[in-house]
Amino acid sequence: MENRKEGKGLPTEFELIRRIGHALPETDPSVILGIGDDAAAVEPGPGMTTLLTTDTFVEGVDFDVAFSSWRQIGWKCMAANYSDIAAMGGVPRHALTTLCLPAHRTAEDVEALYAGIRDLTQHTGQSVSIVGGDLSSTDGPTVVSIMVRGEAAEERITARRGARVGDVLCVTGHLGGSEAGLRLLKSARAHPEPGRLADRFEGALRRHRTPVPRVREGGILACSGWVHAMIDVSDGLSSDALHLARSSGVGLKLDGNALPVADETRQVMEELGIDPVETALESGEEFELLCAVAPEKVDRLAAELGERTGTPLTPIGECVSVDRGCTFSDHTGPRPLRPGGYEHFRD
Amino acid sequence: MENRKEGKGLPTEFELIRRIGHALPETDPSVILGIGDDAAAVEPGPGMTTLLTTDTFVEGVDFDVAFSSWRQIGWKCMAANYSDIAAMGGVPRHALTTLCLPAHRTAEDVEALYAGIRDLTQHTGQSVSIVGGDLSSTDGPTVVSIMVRGEAAEERITARRGARVGDVLCVTGHLGGSEAGLRLLKSARAHPEPGRLADRFEGALRRHRTPVPRVREGGILACSGWVHAMIDVSDGLSSDALHLARSSGVGLKLDGNALPVADETRQVMEELGIDPVETALESGEEFELLCAVAPEKVDRLAAELGERTGTPLTPIGECVSVDRGCTFSDHTGPRPLRPGGYEHFRD
Repeated sequence: MENRKEGKGLPTEFELIRRIGHALPETDPSVILGIGDDAAAVEPGPGMTTLLTTDTFVEGVDFDVAFSSWRQIGWKCMAANYSDIAAMGGVPRHALTTLCLPAHRTAEDVEALYAGIRDLTQHTGQSVSIVGGDLSSTDGPTVVSIMVRGEAAEERITARRGARVGDVLCVTGHLGGSEAGLRLLKSARAHPEPGRLADRFEGALRRHRTPVPRVREGGILACSGWVHAMIDVSDGLSSDALHLARSSGVGLKLDGNALPVADETRQVMEELGIDPVETALESGEEFELLCAVAPEKVDRLAAELGERTGTPLTPIGECVSVDRGCTFSDHTGPRPLRPGGYEHFRD
Repeated sequence: MENRKEGKGLPTEFELIRRIGHALPETDPSVILGIGDDAAAVEPGPGMTTLLTTDTFVEGVDFDVAFSSWRQIGWKCMAANYSDIAAMGGVPRHALTTLCLPAHRTAEDVEALYAGIRDLTQHTGQSVSIVGGDLSSTDGPTVVSIMVRGEAAEERITARRGARVGDVLCVTGHLGGSEAGLRLLKSARAHPEPGRLADRFEGALRRHRTPVPRVREGGILACSGWVHAMIDVSDGLSSDALHLARSSGVGLKLDGNALPVADETRQVMEELGIDPVETALESGEEFELLCAVAPEKVDRLAAELGERTGTPLTPIGECVSVDRGCTFSDHTGPRPLRPGGYEHFRD
């Protein structure tokens, strides 16, 4: 580490592991061996199916340190994993964390990252035990990669496949907030004067920086038995709806006028002059859940979810036969639904 | 992807996932949902404890594309994970693979990487099912990160802790080959004339590029009931012996004259003028297993391991009381054992 400055930069790998270990006191009885062995050893819940997922955030691609603190970045990377587990109707249990760190990162950056992970687990009330991981130096950007092991009873797992013709497509919460928050931050960078928009819309910034994954909601939806397929909105509603349709072998009719956009998000969009429907359709990392619900059960499910979690469930379209394709309607009329969210390696 | 050239570079993320998926046909009955959902769903073996590990290889830090092909890099990154599971006495079962890819990488590079992973699983006879992962673009070096879920019966897990005073420290196979191979490759780069050393020592190059993890050996050692603690040699024998000693609360007396060095490795070292004992002590990514064995069982265990796998088990020291510290003896006499292998973030 040639560029290391006195009092700054990273301590040795083993010291860093020690500091991370101290930041994560755990008394999880399912953990037989945690951080500090060749592999972690954990006891699966009796009769439970194991869920495995991983999400990787690369500096400059998936996050911008000018827009988010390390604490917020830690939250968001873990939230992406929680959201994947939530979309299966499962509960996150154990995690491995991997960091590739350039020499100018500090131990404080790393500790803030873990504090953000802890914030998220406390906020959701779903603690995971971090049982291991890897650390590497890098000449490139910081990479934060988290792998989560979750659990669900096999009969309750909600895959992307399983949607049926006639099912109502529903989404939890609100859409568009993540993209609106990002646009606000970009606008604030372009116009750094005081009284800027960003200061007036904390909620939208929060939706971008520290989105809340729908773990409790996912469990309730999956347990109802009325949800035939589920996916989380991470690439963007249009892309994720298409994933669900393709996996299930159905077509879709999505109603743009029905997309739930929070009042504050709508105000941000108005101020920035961006289209609310388009933004709600393409905004990634929303971490809302999109699900195909038996039509006769939608009202009851929405009522139950609202009562138990306060989270709305909004019908936004229906599953149709595959030969009718996937379409989207707004005030300009119907048109083919195209993937619009974020995609790596796009031309 | 602005730098993409016609016929080169990466296809879209979804196309790449499709190609990876095709490269990995699986009929593993434990996989309920594999690649292509929010999370994978797998069935743990009945009564088995879950092992979780991850290893990350960063281009320019952990591998050099001038020295290894993508196929060899895929092998080695998976081998590092296999070796961690082997050190616990477990069997690798499922994997998640994460790639951060700069724009100049090609789909062929990625397919070669997966071919190398497949080579390794076939070579060891321990197939894992790749059930998911993540892909990201990056402005920095390529990052290959693999997470493996393994299994072991809880009572057979061999942790780093557990070594007792009087135990004999033993190591499988041979040491020093990985570092000798790397030095050969560096020497060949410095002296690119024909008839160079590297061409005469294929075995040493193989030890560096495609080391074989000791999965079968780990299982036999763990099942014997005579191994009280085990670790794989990934950081370097000196560092890993110290990890084992610290975790077990014992001291060590390591005998440098006993370190097993293969004949070819010794020849390479002679030609390059490097010290065999020092190299055997510090060479990382050897993926041999270091274990603390009940003294009266060493001979029987070595005979059994040799018979069943052909792999030697060599006594290289003993565990002593913690107040005697960790020492190492060679022809110059005894001295304190210091961590000497590779460490990230070293000053």
